[in-house]
Order: sequence, then C-alpha cells, then structure tokens
Amino acid sequence: MPRQITSFSNDTVKRIRGLRDKKVRKAEGMFLAEGLRIIAEARDCGVLPIVIAYATQPGGPHPLAQEIIAEAEARGADIIETTPDILSKMSGKDNPQAILGVYRQPDTALSAIDRSSSPLWLVAQSLRDPGNIGTILRTGDATAAGGLILIDDHADPFSVEAVRASMGAIFTQKVATVRWDEFVAWLREGPGQLVGTSLNTTSDYLDARYEQPCFLLVGNESQGLPAEYEAECDLLVKMPMLGRADSLNAAVACAVMAYQIRASWRNN
Amino acid sequence: MPRQITSFSNDTVKRIRGLRDKKVRKAEGMFLAEGLRIIAEARDCGVLPIVIAYATQPGGPHPLAQEIIAEAEARGADIIETTPDILSKMSGKDNPQAILGVYRQPDTALSAIDRSSSPLWLVAQSLRDPGNIGTILRTGDATAAGGLILIDDHADPFSVEAVRASMGAIFTQKVATVRWDEFVAWLREGPGQLVGTSLNTTSDYLDARYEQPCFLLVGNESQGLPAEYEAECDLLVKMPMLGRADSLNAAVACAVMAYQIRASWRNN
Repeated sequence: MPRQITSFSNDTVKRIRGLRDKKVRKAEGMFLAEGLRIIAEARDCGVLPIVIAYATQPGGPHPLAQEIIAEAEARGADIIETTPDILSKMSGKDNPQAILGVYRQPDTALSAIDRSSSPLWLVAQSLRDPGNIGTILRTGDATAAGGLILIDDHADPFSVEAVRASMGAIFTQKVATVRWDEFVAWLREGPGQLVGTSLNTTSDYLDARYEQPCFLLVGNESQGLPAEYEAECDLLVKMPMLGRADSLNAAVACAVMAYQIRASWRNN
Repeated sequence: MPRQITSFSNDTVKRIRGLRDKKVRKAEGMFLAEGLRIIAEARDCGVLPIVIAYATQPGGPHPLAQEIIAEAEARGADIIETTPDILSKMSGKDNPQAILGVYRQPDTALSAIDRSSSPLWLVAQSLRDPGNIGTILRTGDATAAGGLILIDDHADPFSVEAVRASMGAIFTQKVATVRWDEFVAWLREGPGQLVGTSLNTTSDYLDARYEQPCFLLVGNESQGLPAEYEAECDLLVKMPMLGRADSLNAAVACAVMAYQIRASWRNN
C-alpha cells in the first residue's frame, strides 16, 4: 500500500527534491528519473526504483505504472501517493510527469567496464551540457556501444536533464567517470584503438580503418580535444566541414562517427 | 558615438528585453544574438545588427567588437553602451555575454528558397526544442545544405536558444516556415527527392540511392513522422537501431543521415 503524503514539508518530499542538486545526488548515491516511459525502460533492463512517487488521479495510475509499482513494492521500495502540487515540488517542474522514481547510482569506476563486452565505446572529455551527455548515451544504445566513459570534469550524467535526454539509455549503457591519465593507463593495459576527430589530419573519416574494440573520443563542446589528447590517439580522422563552421555539436559529431564506425565494420 | 544607457526603465532596454518573447519577435520582425563569436560570424556573412548593445569595460570593447560596431554604426545602427547589469536585464541572463546584437529576421517564405542552389535541404516537422533547431542549422552549415524548412507548428528558429545552438548558422542557412500541404505542393512543382527515416521499411540507409536535390525529412522529437508524411516520401530508409531504443535524438538522426547522403554522393 502506498504511503499518502499531503504535506509540502514532509521529509521525503524534501529528500527527493534535494536530488535535483548534484552534490546531494553524489552524497546519497541516488538519482531521479521522471515519467512512465523511462521508468518502464529501466524495469525492462531489470532496474527498479527504491522510491516511487505518483500523483493521485481518477482511476489510479496507468496499468503499466501499477505493475511496476507492485514489483518495486515487492522488493521493498517506498511507494508514495501524493498530490500533483507536491509531485511538482519534488520534480521542480510546473508540469511534472505523473510518476517519478528514485534509483541507486550504478558503480562508475572504470574497473567496472569490461572492454570485451562491446566492440565500440564512447569516450567524452569535459562535456558541459547534461543534454549532450544524455543524447550521447542514447546514441550509444542505438549503436550498441558498451557505454560512455566521461573524462575529467563534466556535467553529471545522473542529472534530471541527462537522464531525460538519454531516453532510458542511462539504464542500458555503462557509465564511467575518470581522469585522463587513469583512462590512458587503463586503455593501454589491453586492446583498444583510440579514435579522435580533428581538423589537424588528412585521414578522412570514411576511409579510415576502425579496429575493435574502438574507443571513440569526443572533445568538449567549446574547445574540442586538447593537443595532448589528440597526440594520444591511435587514429585521428577528419569529418568534412563544407560550410563556414569548423565544428559540429558534440553529440552530433559523436553520432555521425559512431554510425560510420559501425558502417565500416559491416562492409568488411 | 554610442548612446549611454544607465536606466533599467529605458525604452530601448525594454524593447530589446521584449525580444526574448516569441510574439514580440514576430511582431517586430527582429531577433537577438548574443556574444562576439556569433556577431562576428554574422558580419562575415554580410549581416550587420541594427542595434548593438555592449557593457562598459576597462579598455573598451574587444578590438573585433570595435570593428563591427564601427561598421554597423556607419550603416545607421543604434549603438548602446551600458552597464553589465542592464545588459544582463536585456539578455535575461545572470552572466550575459559582453555584447549583443539585434537583427532583422530574414524572409521565411518558401518562395525565397531556390532549390537549385544546393543538392541537399533539411526539412523538419513540428520540432519542439529550439536547441534541436539550432543544432540542425549548424549541421546544415557543415554539410552545405541550402537551408532548413520547418513544417507545421514548431519552436522559433529565431529564439535566443536556437540562435545560440546554431553557432552562427542562422546567418548562413536559409530558413523557411510552411504548412505541410503547401510544402508538398511546392516540392512537386520541381525536381526533388523527399527522403524520410522510418522503422517501416527494409531499405537500409547505407544502401539507398539519394538523388539531387535531396530533401531530408526529420520527424518531431516525440512522435516521429505521421503516417501520411511517410507515405508522401519518395524514399524511406531505416537506420540501424542496435539497442533497446527505437529512435535517436532528432538533431542526431538528421546529422547521421545528412552525412550519409553526402558520403553516398562522394562515392559515385
């Protein structure tokens, strides 16, 4: 049976609301996902929330939501029924989704990555925009990448915005966060081709030979890859820039490259 | 010489601030671009602002800004020097760029599009996210598309967010806004292959034959293309979705397709 919460000053409301703050998410090791679609996606990946909050509505929650609520409750989740206004306070949005879930953050240590589990890995350096991180996770899912390795300082992949942009891929893709030096040391312990995109090369991205496992390295939104990061790459390729601009959006560049790498393997 | 504005209640401050509202932008036929990078990009495309506002700073504006200010002033632009706080009010941001420009909106009638001017055109239906519109414009620039045709109801390509995400491509790409029926009527008056991506086809995007001019049609973020829009396409292609998700971010899908269309032409 759900607990009913009718007070804005309830401690659980405050705690869930607090998860919109990166520091709180980190300290608690939890994150928020909003909306039935993503909660259902998580369940299909075998991940259930530890807290579910939903707004009272005529006829009760959506049948799929009821199913997930029952499963989560059977595993000991805290189930909360509340008012739309209080749900709105928790989610920090004027028009919140009718349901939200609180999840445990998975282990983001590089040691949790098994490079042999996929031929393709996405690696991104100092991404600032959580929407880009979520979009890259979504692309990783579509291209069956093993996961996303986030290098140096970056936006939080467990922020509400990143989780939303991932469209559920936060639950299908491994996420690791690591400093550049540690990443390079780990990479060189085993097989793996590090591929970067650059303007400083004549290798066209369509003609290059991509090896497996391939680690596709994407640079920061405004600076691109630092010179020493480029120097570490086993392969630098150039994507045609036919107009005035000299770069693409980071998530876009990552996707064009990931699809091309997959395409090159299919043609062999 | 710049006008000095020191009052928050100044009419020009209010008018510029008003341009953050879509209705005002439409009524005035103007839009805002923030930051020296994009203002310089516009100038390089031969477009100067009709108003420039910048914050007083020690040593005066950046030399490049001074150059553009002088050029714009010579063409009759209103040049405003003000305080960082008032600039912040105009731009609606806590940390505004040091300079902003007000531009006339270009003609967005379909009749202003010359389809023979490029072999590739991007077409997007009911996009809701101005960031996606700007990102698609940026991709259009990189792939030398002629421009972006926005179908049905959509976010405003002249919003601050879209202009920012375009990284200047709002000044290099033609933009047209039109209803679906009018677009189809116009399209069929001349040469042009309408290409859509769909899950309901067996044609792989790598094997398809793309003709010129190619009109690449991208669906809305959450619904994809309506069935009747798919039915109108001359070619439907499928992009591989190797994971759990059945779609990509709209701007990402557009970019992967646009690059593949360009790649297919290069290989012939």
